[in-house]
Amino acid sequence: MEIMSLRHCSLIFLCFVAAAQSVVTPSGKWVSNLKYFANNNYDRMELELTGTKLVGKLGNDSFDGTFRDGRIEGVVKLYGDELVTLRGELKGDRIEGTVTYVGEKLDFPWEAYREAPKSAGVPKTHVFEPTQFEHYFSDAIAPVLHVSPGDTVKTWSVDAGGTDAKGVRRTSGGNPLTGPFYVDGAIPGDTLVVHLNRLRLNRDSAISSPLIVNSALNAGYVADRKKVSDYDADWKLDREGGFASLQKPTETMNNYKVPLAPMLGCVGVAPGGGNRFRSGYLGSFGGNMDYNQVREGVTIYLPVSAMGGLLFVGDGHALQGAGELTGNALETSMDIEFTVDLVKGGAPRFPRMENNEFLMASGIAGSLDEAFRQATTNLVLWLEKDYKLNPAEVSSVLGTAMVYDVAEVVDPQVHVVAKVAKTRLAGLKR
Amino acid sequence: MEIMSLRHCSLIFLCFVAAAQSVVTPSGKWVSNLKYFANNNYDRMELELTGTKLVGKLGNDSFDGTFRDGRIEGVVKLYGDELVTLRGELKGDRIEGTVTYVGEKLDFPWEAYREAPKSAGVPKTHVFEPTQFEHYFSDAIAPVLHVSPGDTVKTWSVDAGGTDAKGVRRTSGGNPLTGPFYVDGAIPGDTLVVHLNRLRLNRDSAISSPLIVNSALNAGYVADRKKVSDYDADWKLDREGGFASLQKPTETMNNYKVPLAPMLGCVGVAPGGGNRFRSGYLGSFGGNMDYNQVREGVTIYLPVSAMGGLLFVGDGHALQGAGELTGNALETSMDIEFTVDLVKGGAPRFPRMENNEFLMASGIAGSLDEAFRQATTNLVLWLEKDYKLNPAEVSSVLGTAMVYDVAEVVDPQVHVVAKVAKTRLAGLKR
Amino acid sequence: MEIMSLRHCSLIFLCFVAAAQSVVTPSGKWVSNLKYFANNNYDRMELELTGTKLVGKLGNDSFDGTFRDGRIEGVVKLYGDELVTLRGELKGDRIEGTVTYVGEKLDFPWEAYREAPKSAGVPKTHVFEPTQFEHYFSDAIAPVLHVSPGDTVKTWSVDAGGTDAKGVRRTSGGNPLTGPFYVDGAIPGDTLVVHLNRLRLNRDSAISSPLIVNSALNAGYVADRKKVSDYDADWKLDREGGFASLQKPTETMNNYKVPLAPMLGCVGVAPGGGNRFRSGYLGSFGGNMDYNQVREGVTIYLPVSAMGGLLFVGDGHALQGAGELTGNALETSMDIEFTVDLVKGGAPRFPRMENNEFLMASGIAGSLDEAFRQATTNLVLWLEKDYKLNPAEVSSVLGTAMVYDVAEVVDPQVHVVAKVAKTRLAGLKR
Amino acid sequence: MEIMSLRHCSLIFLCFVAAAQSVVTPSGKWVSNLKYFANNNYDRMELELTGTKLVGKLGNDSFDGTFRDGRIEGVVKLYGDELVTLRGELKGDRIEGTVTYVGEKLDFPWEAYREAPKSAGVPKTHVFEPTQFEHYFSDAIAPVLHVSPGDTVKTWSVDAGGTDAKGVRRTSGGNPLTGPFYVDGAIPGDTLVVHLNRLRLNRDSAISSPLIVNSALNAGYVADRKKVSDYDADWKLDREGGFASLQKPTETMNNYKVPLAPMLGCVGVAPGGGNRFRSGYLGSFGGNMDYNQVREGVTIYLPVSAMGGLLFVGDGHALQGAGELTGNALETSMDIEFTVDLVKGGAPRFPRMENNEFLMASGIAGSLDEAFRQATTNLVLWLEKDYKLNPAEVSSVLGTAMVYDVAEVVDPQVHVVAKVAKTRLAGLKR
Repeated sequence: MEIMSLRHCSLIFLCFVAAAQSVVTPSGKWVSNLKYFANNNYDRMELELTGTKLVGKLGNDSFDGTFRDGRIEGVVKLYGDELVTLRGELKGDRIEGTVTYVGEKLDFPWEAYREAPKSAGVPKTHVFEPTQFEHYFSDAIAPVLHVSPGDTVKTWSVDAGGTDAKGVRRTSGGNPLTGPFYVDGAIPGDTLVVHLNRLRLNRDSAISSPLIVNSALNAGYVADRKKVSDYDADWKLDREGGFASLQKPTETMNNYKVPLAPMLGCVGVAPGGGNRFRSGYLGSFGGNMDYNQVREGVTIYLPVSAMGGLLFVGDGHALQGAGELTGNALETSMDIEFTVDLVKGGAPRFPRMENNEFLMASGIAGSLDEAFRQATTNLVLWLEKDYKLNPAEVSSVLGTAMVYDVAEVVDPQVHVVAKVAKTRLAGLKR
Repeated sequence: MEIMSLRHCSLIFLCFVAAAQSVVTPSGKWVSNLKYFANNNYDRMELELTGTKLVGKLGNDSFDGTFRDGRIEGVVKLYGDELVTLRGELKGDRIEGTVTYVGEKLDFPWEAYREAPKSAGVPKTHVFEPTQFEHYFSDAIAPVLHVSPGDTVKTWSVDAGGTDAKGVRRTSGGNPLTGPFYVDGAIPGDTLVVHLNRLRLNRDSAISSPLIVNSALNAGYVADRKKVSDYDADWKLDREGGFASLQKPTETMNNYKVPLAPMLGCVGVAPGGGNRFRSGYLGSFGGNMDYNQVREGVTIYLPVSAMGGLLFVGDGHALQGAGELTGNALETSMDIEFTVDLVKGGAPRFPRMENNEFLMASGIAGSLDEAFRQATTNLVLWLEKDYKLNPAEVSSVLGTAMVYDVAEVVDPQVHVVAKVAKTRLAGLKR
Repeated sequence: MEIMSLRHCSLIFLCFVAAAQSVVTPSGKWVSNLKYFANNNYDRMELELTGTKLVGKLGNDSFDGTFRDGRIEGVVKLYGDELVTLRGELKGDRIEGTVTYVGEKLDFPWEAYREAPKSAGVPKTHVFEPTQFEHYFSDAIAPVLHVSPGDTVKTWSVDAGGTDAKGVRRTSGGNPLTGPFYVDGAIPGDTLVVHLNRLRLNRDSAISSPLIVNSALNAGYVADRKKVSDYDADWKLDREGGFASLQKPTETMNNYKVPLAPMLGCVGVAPGGGNRFRSGYLGSFGGNMDYNQVREGVTIYLPVSAMGGLLFVGDGHALQGAGELTGNALETSMDIEFTVDLVKGGAPRFPRMENNEFLMASGIAGSLDEAFRQATTNLVLWLEKDYKLNPAEVSSVLGTAMVYDVAEVVDPQVHVVAKVAKTRLAGLKR
Repeated sequence: MEIMSLRHCSLIFLCFVAAAQSVVTPSGKWVSNLKYFANNNYDRMELELTGTKLVGKLGNDSFDGTFRDGRIEGVVKLYGDELVTLRGELKGDRIEGTVTYVGEKLDFPWEAYREAPKSAGVPKTHVFEPTQFEHYFSDAIAPVLHVSPGDTVKTWSVDAGGTDAKGVRRTSGGNPLTGPFYVDGAIPGDTLVVHLNRLRLNRDSAISSPLIVNSALNAGYVADRKKVSDYDADWKLDREGGFASLQKPTETMNNYKVPLAPMLGCVGVAPGGGNRFRSGYLGSFGGNMDYNQVREGVTIYLPVSAMGGLLFVGDGHALQGAGELTGNALETSMDIEFTVDLVKGGAPRFPRMENNEFLMASGIAGSLDEAFRQATTNLVLWLEKDYKLNPAEVSSVLGTAMVYDVAEVVDPQVHVVAKVAKTRLAGLKR
């Protein structure tokens, strides 16, 4: 088992700062980083100077200290206990100093910078033409673009096999991703909001796979399943007519048509803990969620684990049945337009989504049973917080109004969504 | 582990019959019973006499024998091997004799009776007033009524706690059932068809439970869940307005209304193997399926395991969210009208349902993962059979059109439903 | 969902009794039965008369009442609330009367009889020759023998296919059981203790199955598994040499020998709730547990749900690997000797066992994950109760000393055992 | 879903080479790398020149080509189909050229170098003093040491919290790892063999956690579990006496002693697919397996996914119960000595281990049910291959001799081990 150091998750402190020229006061809003060996522990800090007395907050913890001769010195108390001593020098819009953790012999660097004011300008629209494609969700990948909360990005993605709208193979397969996009001001613990404004097919073909995966079936059926030879699982997309059909259908399937319902298989941020996951992975960071409601008009809430969030998108599906049973849906390239926003703090444990009809809460885990429990709990916590429901009230609501979707069962983790119609919630007093 | 004897499942034979007065020929359709110790093995038998040569089928196996002087003698061959020797005497509409199993020293009784011709008369409507209520699904309970395929039954059920439309407690709680109804002509291996013509609320109250069950939630949430005291989880049913609301709502829930959607929690036949399950159980026999689409207009297909099928109904819910998360839905009494029908053979492994919109296939098991696999396989087999799809074709259809419901997670087994819209299937060549 | 009536589980009351001739006082120990519709609710009752004041306990609840003119009248209070009114007449060693439940309109019968004193005599040894065999665990089967706590039974069982020590087929297959044995004095809620004194093979052959079941394997492996024809999975048992080997081994298996380790697949009592389960089932009542440590020398603790407990035994295995992977172990007939004992109350939620080395706690459920949690919790509760450990202490013990066995994965429920060596517990202060 | 390109997994080709000076022939053994966008596809290649005809193998596929004027040209056929065209120039011990994949427009680089002869020298013993510690399993971490198959490494690890033998915190917590060690000659698809020669405690204390994790228990128990305050879960290790006991035991635990059984929680190679997993992860690459039989004397077989394998070790436990129920075992620093070896090819899907008593096959997955199936299948495949058993024979062996261990249930994946005693296998003809 791993022992996650306290320092890895939470952060806390005290300061001392020399007067800087350009900014003569430590008062204001900061982003602090308490180093601990190789770990960064970012958190928001707010300080207020009165005489030489300097008080405020680091994250949720109270800071108590002094500011004299440009030096900050103080302690951060967690639940009333002194936990961390901070000493630093105010250098304009920066603080540089050291942090001393209780019970630790070594000191570590402490840095802080003034938080940028919320952009007052008009939101921008960025047109981003990708030229390379990522195969991982990771905080170690340099962002392709910086955007501000409120900005919109117009871009596109290749299909899961690496082929673009013109049928040109642009990279190797395995869900190549467009991005990452750095959202200015996002720090770990924040909630990244992604509005999917527009999601459109940009070619007339999709590739898929011919068989329901073994793991979605009874093993006895699998053992007896007849082999089918020469079956072509490629699809043609009739964008005008609005449906898909097999490119080379068998006689039985000759008139089988299914409505197009474009969606993104992958929407995710850099995962926490420095993990680098192949773009087939999914988890609390989102990722290869393969949920057929991630469509034009949806809003997605993702927990930020890295500075800037680092948003990746890709893996377009012309449409997908629940579960993504054949392992590949109707995989195709896609034109994408999204607007980002930022909620400070409030990072959910697993992704949340909403559209005009539903609040949707993901559960992602190694079994449907566990994913189901996580999804249920995710929606329960959402309603308890946003609608101020107590455990019995939320039970009455979800006992009468819960709906579940099985998003996918073919990736390294399975994905269940617990959802509730907004019409059900309309009567709740908030 | 139990070794289920071959004799328990399959049946096969040869015969010899003395001429009877009333019916001078063994030709025709029969229902045969090959005994094996205490087990009955019913199957349909069809014989044709040419001179003294008597051939036909017992179940799916070929029968080859003679008929002389009123005595039938013959063998039943499974895959071309002689498996069972049958010897019997034709006594009008009955055959009485013995069966000799290959490799067994003892002989066992063999009986057969002529299968009743399909009722040519006008279907009947039975009004059944229950006076006692069953707490088990079992083939050991005497039927309350015999009905013919095509007949309709009008009846009612108490709520899960045993209380009727007038608020009178009629029996102890635990899903008291109305029935069982014996469907004439149904033998093990058949498919019992239940059309739910009408399902209506008959009182203005429902009882429920206040909390989502522990097992549907993350254990960490459960450990920290705040206690709520004095919460009343009883509901009032506004049948005119068409919605339910809490009888004594908290302020927050004061305007919470949810549309009525009456359903039956329990629809089941006697389980196989002689098991007697409490009415909270569910399984391949149906039972306490707690699926909120078992509503007026649905047709249910159940595998017959006992002579007459023995249909039970009960456990009405004014409405229920997916999963039946609070353990009890909005439990209430119900007016019920259903029409039964019979398909010879074809018993599905798990229940199937359909309404105007969907084909729905149940998976019932000890975990969501296994129930999911059973549900998927159940629907796959249904489409392979009825739509003549091969494994790749069915994969293309369900890969693009599958929908899953989580029916319930609170009973001794969990229940997942795999379903596909009929509009999707309309284009398939049959 | 089923609403289990309060009356189904718990029982409570008040009394009034006319003086009887033979016994003039209601003081003493009783077994009470509060009827509720068709349900019986047995519990122990202890009364003490002082003047006309009659106080005592019904189960864990306090009784408070009077005794005048042979009539008992009183109330039973649960947590200080009056819950049940009892009125009855003392008729020697019986009480007959009525129970009135709070909030219910109907009265129900109340009966009680004096609990027999613990048998003072020498324990008996019964030799029981079975002539018929049961295929269900059920409280509806008449006992074959009454035994007292402390008594020993010598008997035998056929194999899972119904064949006895001489190779004679005695009944149909599917784990035919010997019993049930009625243990005098056992009432629901008690713990039946079964010491397996002697368990010996009585023939030289065992039957088994040739393949690991699909559900224990990766579906991809199952799909690709090569067919093996003409494989004979019958075993010969060398009782002198102490090992088993295939009767007709392939060349590769010619010298494969495995030590005999006789065990019982089935040890169970009548299940609760009136369920009748085929003898392939298992659950809180024990049953077809298929655990290879149910061997000579083991002691088994089972929760009593029916009067007399009703103990069944059968399904002998000459030996079995963990999981019973091939569905059938080395199935054979068996000579059995066991001694029963009784602990009043204390029924564990799932079976417990012990031998010289281990305390063993069963978890039986629909998935290994859930069975694992049940097994862990079962052992935790056992140690918390018997060793007075708090949750942290039990965690330190089991975190360092826990061992798990996967008992079986092929029956209707899977079975995991959590166990701890007695040497580990020796240092704990009790 | 991700579409993994064919090129990602398999590799195939044809060549033509100009005579080089130093080495005039392409005959011999090579390691080839067929690039495909950013992917490397390493495989062994063996060529034989006869006149200008050049034939051989690339991986398991046949190569057919020519060698003229220093240029190699040829095709690689998979199952008899031409799949890849290779063109390159022989430059001494290197080949440089291009690969053309059928159906792809772009060419990609092809490189090969002569495989080093197996080291003829005496195996070396390396003493490695770690100065930094890794927190990931990843192929992106530079090796700290190159070793040859047969070599031995003596080193040590900090505890899971980052503290060394002297109690000095050396890095942040979370299973800091020692390594990675690059094993010369190891390429993807090989099997890395790690003999754990010596594993010794080097300090007298261990840290642990006070409570069994929620997810290992019944949720109802968790909800009701009493809080325990002031419980100290640190342990003292009596290395002379050979047991552990709590440093500050409660009265009940005062004499609780448990034998030391030092093990490594983490033994793993770089995972495939370029994933970078935190050192708490486990999977097919091994990693944080937390299995209490990874002790002195064990041999571990790991599937190589990166050049050199890249072996990491760490997370020593003074001892651990099955499941690692408290999340942390008795975490301590450790002196480690191991010898590495290499099997070309044969990479198992999941780790395998053996000691003097058992063959042990891991299953690592998101649920115990799936981990169980993977473990069973892993052992089945091992025996089928190494003992030439067919599916029925392996079923007879494991049906009678299988043993399961639950290794751990507290990490991001759970770990089940299927094992069989070597004494059982001794009689099998090989």
